[in-house]
Amino acid sequence: MSLLKADVNRVSAFAPATSANLGVGFDILGLALDAVGDTVTLTKRDDNQIVIEKINSVTGLPLEPTKNTASFAVQKMCEDLGITTGFSLQIDKGIAMGSGMGGSAASAVAAVVALNGFLSSPISKERLVEFALYGEEIASGGRHADNVAPCVFGGITLIRSIDPMEVINLPYPELYCVIVHPHLQVETKSARGILSPTVALKKYIEQSAALAAAICAFYQKDVELLRRSMQDLIIEPQRAALVTGYYDVKQAAIDAGAISATLSGSGPSLLAFCESKTGAESVAQAMLTAFKQHQVNADHWISPINPNGAYTL
Amino acid sequence: MSLLKADVNRVSAFAPATSANLGVGFDILGLALDAVGDTVTLTKRDDNQIVIEKINSVTGLPLEPTKNTASFAVQKMCEDLGITTGFSLQIDKGIAMGSGMGGSAASAVAAVVALNGFLSSPISKERLVEFALYGEEIASGGRHADNVAPCVFGGITLIRSIDPMEVINLPYPELYCVIVHPHLQVETKSARGILSPTVALKKYIEQSAALAAAICAFYQKDVELLRRSMQDLIIEPQRAALVTGYYDVKQAAIDAGAISATLSGSGPSLLAFCESKTGAESVAQAMLTAFKQHQVNADHWISPINPNGAYTL
Repeated sequence: MSLLKADVNRVSAFAPATSANLGVGFDILGLALDAVGDTVTLTKRDDNQIVIEKINSVTGLPLEPTKNTASFAVQKMCEDLGITTGFSLQIDKGIAMGSGMGGSAASAVAAVVALNGFLSSPISKERLVEFALYGEEIASGGRHADNVAPCVFGGITLIRSIDPMEVINLPYPELYCVIVHPHLQVETKSARGILSPTVALKKYIEQSAALAAAICAFYQKDVELLRRSMQDLIIEPQRAALVTGYYDVKQAAIDAGAISATLSGSGPSLLAFCESKTGAESVAQAMLTAFKQHQVNADHWISPINPNGAYTL
Repeated sequence: MSLLKADVNRVSAFAPATSANLGVGFDILGLALDAVGDTVTLTKRDDNQIVIEKINSVTGLPLEPTKNTASFAVQKMCEDLGITTGFSLQIDKGIAMGSGMGGSAASAVAAVVALNGFLSSPISKERLVEFALYGEEIASGGRHADNVAPCVFGGITLIRSIDPMEVINLPYPELYCVIVHPHLQVETKSARGILSPTVALKKYIEQSAALAAAICAFYQKDVELLRRSMQDLIIEPQRAALVTGYYDVKQAAIDAGAISATLSGSGPSLLAFCESKTGAESVAQAMLTAFKQHQVNADHWISPINPNGAYTL
């Protein structure tokens, strides 16, 4: 049997925006958003090349296949599976670059999910995560799956292990996410660079209790327990200074009723959890006002959690 | 209304043995065992004194009220609640001292649970944990509730917070615990003393994933996920050298089918989780044999998890 379905020449896939870290679960927890996402279309080529045909994006992105997360992931997946057919990629960026919403992960995921649509025997979601990670790696400089995993699986995901890849989908109560993206430049690589290579044992224990309690809160769908548990004693204090007005914006979110507010991924965006859409709108306004008091403009999105992850169109 | 019931002169309470740390959840997770426990009987006195009348134990224990975990916890609870009546304590130790089964916690818990039996308005389990902790503090030198909390609540408990005290009871699949107590001397205080005050960030992330996955495994009652998740990358490597033959005994347990094997609390005992009673018996024998090959004698207990915790008799 051929690796590729004979009658399929073009597949498009959509992959949602994501938020990583969530305040607990640094590098291991992430969630998928319903608001926006990237779409990648793959078309078969006869010349065995992986080529980026077009990128629709407001900001410039590399057209060189080995520097683009989508084409690099496709290239790795083709190599590994022994696919010799070439593909042209069209990338439609719905996610603003540097918004802290997992744009690089979404492009890579949409690309491998589209490629999976060509396969006679599609591969598992875990393997899609592994291939998309190659793309994420060129963008962030590390093999962190906390955006890629929720992008593929949807919902809130825990990465138990990267090698072998194991992702656990967590249950969760109804939640609305507010993402506020301040117009500040924070690069993922430098946000990682400032982190201390060690954690104090006492903080490790306290943060472990918060993480474990948050997992309980998700399973019990207990919003009040989530409110008490979503705290970050380790990463947030180190990165807060990268975002002008960070603690004021966070406090504004909490005062407006947010369950929690924290850096989304490595920032500069903030993620706040809210119980209702109306609540989320108040929280978003409070956060934008707090940023304005620091002369910082910001975009925002309000989104429920996307339960299903990336899919072919 | 009087603080104490008028017609109650004597109350006995039983508190179960416990195991702390479990391989994941250092200082925050613990469980109650069904095998053995301590019983404390409180009898009212007219002279307003807290007096230890008798300790039935194979090993010597301090009779001085401020040095004994049970009497010190009772004293603190009386002070805090404004109880001026005196009490005589009889302590029946079912748990061998230094066995890593929470003997000091059990005496303190049995004592405060017995005292609670005198109260016209009994206090909450959380507050009982707080008072018993005063007793535990003199024994271990720190305010660690990972034995006291499961002793009071039963089951497998997560301590989300000590101040304010918040304990979460976790669900769990049917499990049999094997506790093997080698005849080696490891003091809790020195076992804490050898721990590095910092944790590498990378280990912190990996261990967080293991902890979070183990919490998922408890909620999902998924024994295979538990098997993949119960690992200790941080504490075990630092303490293993305190226990002669540690890694051989651990491996023997795993080879015999245990879900996991780790130090129980600060050791020297080991705790292994098994899926059945017969399985637990094989695992226990394999662990005893492995200790013997290192010329170490050991006692052992096989026990299901005690679901209810301490109670008045």
